[in-house]
Amino acid sequence: MISKPLISSLPATISWENDVLSILDQTRLPQETLVEKLTTAEEVWRAIHELRVRGAPAIGVAAAYGLCVAMRASLHLAMPEFRAHLLKQAAYLDSARPTAVNLSWSLKRMVQVAQASRSNDPASLLEALIDEAMAIHDEDRALCDAIGEHGVALIGEGCGVLTHCNAGALATTGLGTATAPIYKAHGAGTRFRVYADETRPLLQGARLTTYELQHAGVDVTLITDSMAASIMAQGLIDLVIVGTDRVAANGDFANKIGTFALAIVARHFGIPFYVACPSSTLDLHTATGSEIVIEERRDDEVTHLYGQRIAPADLKVRNPAFDVTPHELVTGFITERGIVGKPFGQHLAALFAMEGDAA
Amino acid sequence: MISKPLISSLPATISWENDVLSILDQTRLPQETLVEKLTTAEEVWRAIHELRVRGAPAIGVAAAYGLCVAMRASLHLAMPEFRAHLLKQAAYLDSARPTAVNLSWSLKRMVQVAQASRSNDPASLLEALIDEAMAIHDEDRALCDAIGEHGVALIGEGCGVLTHCNAGALATTGLGTATAPIYKAHGAGTRFRVYADETRPLLQGARLTTYELQHAGVDVTLITDSMAASIMAQGLIDLVIVGTDRVAANGDFANKIGTFALAIVARHFGIPFYVACPSSTLDLHTATGSEIVIEERRDDEVTHLYGQRIAPADLKVRNPAFDVTPHELVTGFITERGIVGKPFGQHLAALFAMEGDAA
Repeated sequence: MISKPLISSLPATISWENDVLSILDQTRLPQETLVEKLTTAEEVWRAIHELRVRGAPAIGVAAAYGLCVAMRASLHLAMPEFRAHLLKQAAYLDSARPTAVNLSWSLKRMVQVAQASRSNDPASLLEALIDEAMAIHDEDRALCDAIGEHGVALIGEGCGVLTHCNAGALATTGLGTATAPIYKAHGAGTRFRVYADETRPLLQGARLTTYELQHAGVDVTLITDSMAASIMAQGLIDLVIVGTDRVAANGDFANKIGTFALAIVARHFGIPFYVACPSSTLDLHTATGSEIVIEERRDDEVTHLYGQRIAPADLKVRNPAFDVTPHELVTGFITERGIVGKPFGQHLAALFAMEGDAA
Repeated sequence: MISKPLISSLPATISWENDVLSILDQTRLPQETLVEKLTTAEEVWRAIHELRVRGAPAIGVAAAYGLCVAMRASLHLAMPEFRAHLLKQAAYLDSARPTAVNLSWSLKRMVQVAQASRSNDPASLLEALIDEAMAIHDEDRALCDAIGEHGVALIGEGCGVLTHCNAGALATTGLGTATAPIYKAHGAGTRFRVYADETRPLLQGARLTTYELQHAGVDVTLITDSMAASIMAQGLIDLVIVGTDRVAANGDFANKIGTFALAIVARHFGIPFYVACPSSTLDLHTATGSEIVIEERRDDEVTHLYGQRIAPADLKVRNPAFDVTPHELVTGFITERGIVGKPFGQHLAALFAMEGDAA
């Protein structure tokens, strides 16, 4: 049973209705609830690149539908050209962002479906692509639900849960990853508190996580990223749950900048630190975190906020969008198949090796 | 020799010229360089309360002059009433902010001068008060200079120095505290890099530290608070120097929110962590950090930025302006008398006990 009803009042992150792809523009939240139709590959690329649709699982779903949108515009091509164009468009969409593995995972899966298909005409191949995108979409919802079912037991009555960035319903098409156990616990009537890091520079925590949890009636408190140690020192946090954009084979994982510091601070206070993720985020071809490419984004994301300059002009700025947290700081991975403990290399491979290789 | 010339092009944080108190409005920087005259006790109180003048040492100087401004308006009073009013005004100014010890230290010192004075008329007592305020002001500059002289050896060629918030020239009337070694090293021709945490919620790092270091020609790079671990993991940081608003007798210290997390992260990477402070920041009457009162500021400092809402309405927010870092995480205190190492309780008391008690 998929529990989207737990957050049914929240606008859909991504929708595909009557063959039209729409996304909720997450750069406008919480000020404005704007649903945007994406009708070309370029629009999909830009929506991913500019974080209007964001969150590793949601990016995967958007890219799959995006490939359908792209290929629909090419139905006039002869079959060999159509197939060649498909590879080109998949590579193009894959270039929208570098860090989240779900983007290339999802596109690879779409390409494999095309390659396996015996369709002789573009229209029927497009049908197969749309079916696969819808399957990826459905699976994403089911994965979130399963993550929630496995993680819910971690959240006891009276707990304080800290999360960073938005690995929420808005980052997926279901209950979210880090938030799935939160929604499940809330649905079960458990009383607990969530603290949301605001997550500079793009404030996904302040703008999105608070928005969706408040929407669902969860007791949520906003803090700046720098307050976590202080809040933990006051004994208010029992558990940290974050999402991830890529998990290496040894359990090192990439997530929004600030996650690494949070993991170090949680370790200092002896607070369990969990990473919630579907197996599509596991990249067994990446041995350790040092191989993960970290996206360095534009300076003005740090120096400006809503067009307002907040730092002097002509300043040197660093803006890595992600950091890599070493596996030593992780208590466990909450996956759709259960909670994976140490040693991660062995346990992750055992649970997911076959799927990882197949993908 | 006091090296204000190192940063002579920077507007004065506080000035007292022709008996007129002016401050540089730090809430407007870096967009606007606005010097504001403060002509009543209420204006001084508000300027401190609203952080237009901020930084523990600068608050101490502003409050001393503020008491002069307040008492000048009361010269018509008879001497007993004048003295009684002085105590009232000192207590009033002391209430502007709770955490920085320099505020009460400076006002206590002003009151002691008044109590020791044999003046029979308000005008001559006011003269004595102005002299004392100017002495506090001069001493602040000399203290910064001495801190710089003692700390400069920590910054070697090619070093990376990380600082948090603004314990800079703008937080004092001299070279700053955490920045004093930086200005001295820069003046001596050492080539090194500074990384400035932006310091949410009020962005003193992004707005002020970058501004003054860039002004002085120091190689400075802005990062968000959450990036420190990532930058440290890349081997770019050799040394952390921060300021403080109050040091307890055991070496626990209060500083801008985020300092505690930074100290934990620095410890994780084995990076030395120094606190720069004049002895006026040492509060020997506070045994440990748990006794330090932490100012909790308004929600909208977190939920709004320059009037722009960045989070949903009606949200629960925490906004402690400071945190307390336990002394175990400190490598040393850079003071005007030298660098104080462990055990801090013993060494701080030995260096400063007499002055601390006298104050």
